[in-house]
Amino acid sequence: MNDHRLFTFLDLAGTFAFAFSGAVAARDRGLDWFGVIVIAFAVACGGGVLRDLCIGAVPPAGLTDWRYLAVAMAASWVTLTARALVVRLAHPVTLFDSLGLGLFAVTGAQKALIFGHNAEVAVLLGVVTAVGGGVARDVLLNRVPVILRREVYASAALVGAVIEVCGERLGWVSSGRTWSALMACFALRYLSLRYKWNLPRSLGHDGSGSGSDK
Amino acid sequence: MNDHRLFTFLDLAGTFAFAFSGAVAARDRGLDWFGVIVIAFAVACGGGVLRDLCIGAVPPAGLTDWRYLAVAMAASWVTLTARALVVRLAHPVTLFDSLGLGLFAVTGAQKALIFGHNAEVAVLLGVVTAVGGGVARDVLLNRVPVILRREVYASAALVGAVIEVCGERLGWVSSGRTWSALMACFALRYLSLRYKWNLPRSLGHDGSGSGSDK
Amino acid sequence: MNDHRLFTFLDLAGTFAFAFSGAVAARDRGLDWFGVIVIAFAVACGGGVLRDLCIGAVPPAGLTDWRYLAVAMAASWVTLTARALVVRLAHPVTLFDSLGLGLFAVTGAQKALIFGHNAEVAVLLGVVTAVGGGVARDVLLNRVPVILRREVYASAALVGAVIEVCGERLGWVSSGRTWSALMACFALRYLSLRYKWNLPRSLGHDGSGSGSDK
Repeated sequence: MNDHRLFTFLDLAGTFAFAFSGAVAARDRGLDWFGVIVIAFAVACGGGVLRDLCIGAVPPAGLTDWRYLAVAMAASWVTLTARALVVRLAHPVTLFDSLGLGLFAVTGAQKALIFGHNAEVAVLLGVVTAVGGGVARDVLLNRVPVILRREVYASAALVGAVIEVCGERLGWVSSGRTWSALMACFALRYLSLRYKWNLPRSLGHDGSGSGSDK
Repeated sequence: MNDHRLFTFLDLAGTFAFAFSGAVAARDRGLDWFGVIVIAFAVACGGGVLRDLCIGAVPPAGLTDWRYLAVAMAASWVTLTARALVVRLAHPVTLFDSLGLGLFAVTGAQKALIFGHNAEVAVLLGVVTAVGGGVARDVLLNRVPVILRREVYASAALVGAVIEVCGERLGWVSSGRTWSALMACFALRYLSLRYKWNLPRSLGHDGSGSGSDK
Repeated sequence: MNDHRLFTFLDLAGTFAFAFSGAVAARDRGLDWFGVIVIAFAVACGGGVLRDLCIGAVPPAGLTDWRYLAVAMAASWVTLTARALVVRLAHPVTLFDSLGLGLFAVTGAQKALIFGHNAEVAVLLGVVTAVGGGVARDVLLNRVPVILRREVYASAALVGAVIEVCGERLGWVSSGRTWSALMACFALRYLSLRYKWNLPRSLGHDGSGSGSDK
């Protein structure tokens, strides 16, 4: 119960950070306020909705729980009205986004396990939960998803989901493995941002990887 | 039963208008005839398919009922063969598209309620039903969905879905709330087109909202 | 059982060819290695996942069976490390891709029939299984899906799915109809590549079908 309450809090904080990143991208792209809310909501809940569809948990939690929509609208409202605040929030939001990434990877994997699916499904859906929303944002904003092009983002989510699932298989206590997984993902993501780590990139035929149209 | 028959008729008329808009966009984009049919079908049924996946109504009605496919193919056929007719159809199609928008929002919300889901799910899926196809069209045609950028479109669908769901909660008779919701959405959409209403748009960092790549 | 084992082999061979095409496209677009694997996996399993969601077979087979992921990773690894091999593989991969197209169309239709759905659903989901992954690849790589613009690709899948479903309705023996459908689709696709057949394309308003942004 205690765990559940803690997860709920972190879940909503991560949701806000995700929604905020979506709202800022949508605003920069010149969308109207409805579009900003849609993108914010898509980033916040897109990954979870896809996970829930894949495990048969319908309707998806992102749609049934009004708090996700409320959080997405709050993030949009801040983005659209408080420009100065947005600048000041940039650093904390990066922090919460990294935390949200780890949390979504862990809870996504957990939910798949709770529904009785195997380890591979749990790891894959952990990653989908964590990065699905960001992919949806970039597809809707008509650009190649940034997580596929550079940065240690989805791979950090992968590490988190793998630790969670392995820990569950090895019989670690629930809170221990969750915190380990969350912190590993968070640290990996946060340090990669700070020290500009990137995954190796294969040069295309054009020699420059010029697909990056952002 | 009478209601059911009326809805079926409006449903197919709205489907035709939606499919027509998709077929015209696909033709203008230079797709081959197969691509035109796919886009027409995606606009007509995409929103409903997504709604049905989210409420667990599988296989989605858009796939099981041959009439939707037939209507999408008819709309494609008209678009590809009768150029003069297309021009003459432009105004009526705008009309039916607005009607279809209201109808899809209302029936989408109704179906979610019939499946026993809560008011938030019903409103969200009403909007998804109404605008999902248009979003799929724009994603497939590689542009930022127009409904996220300008015009009173998704917001009209939202008004329709909210009226339907509130009416149901307040115990209005079924046909009364359906017609109110349908007409409110239709009027809002149609008047916004006529008088060029737009939602406020937040200028991006580039000052011009230059994300609009259409 | 024998049929089952044969299908498993062809399924994995087709999966490799599909994954390979995705990995090459992703590499040419300059994605990092994680992005390459994601696109390879999306091409290989995207259509099947969408089919499984539509028929309620959750979690989708593409996620539960580790072999698909292993095959996608192997195809990515070949693409990223063995450039000379990629060039030499170009022709065989086209061959397997055409075979995979036919096989996916046939097995997709079969699975829908096995789940008790009607002929239309089976045909549509056969096509979705065969081409869904390629559409996902192009959407993620931010271009108009090539199958909607030119080439006899989805239409070959359609022919295969129709033969399979008609054969089942007409009571043909299972292996007979499967091989007929597979070979018809394969031949159509392969010959169309060799002789550069295209579906008719409707010129857009701009007279040049300039939507092709590839």
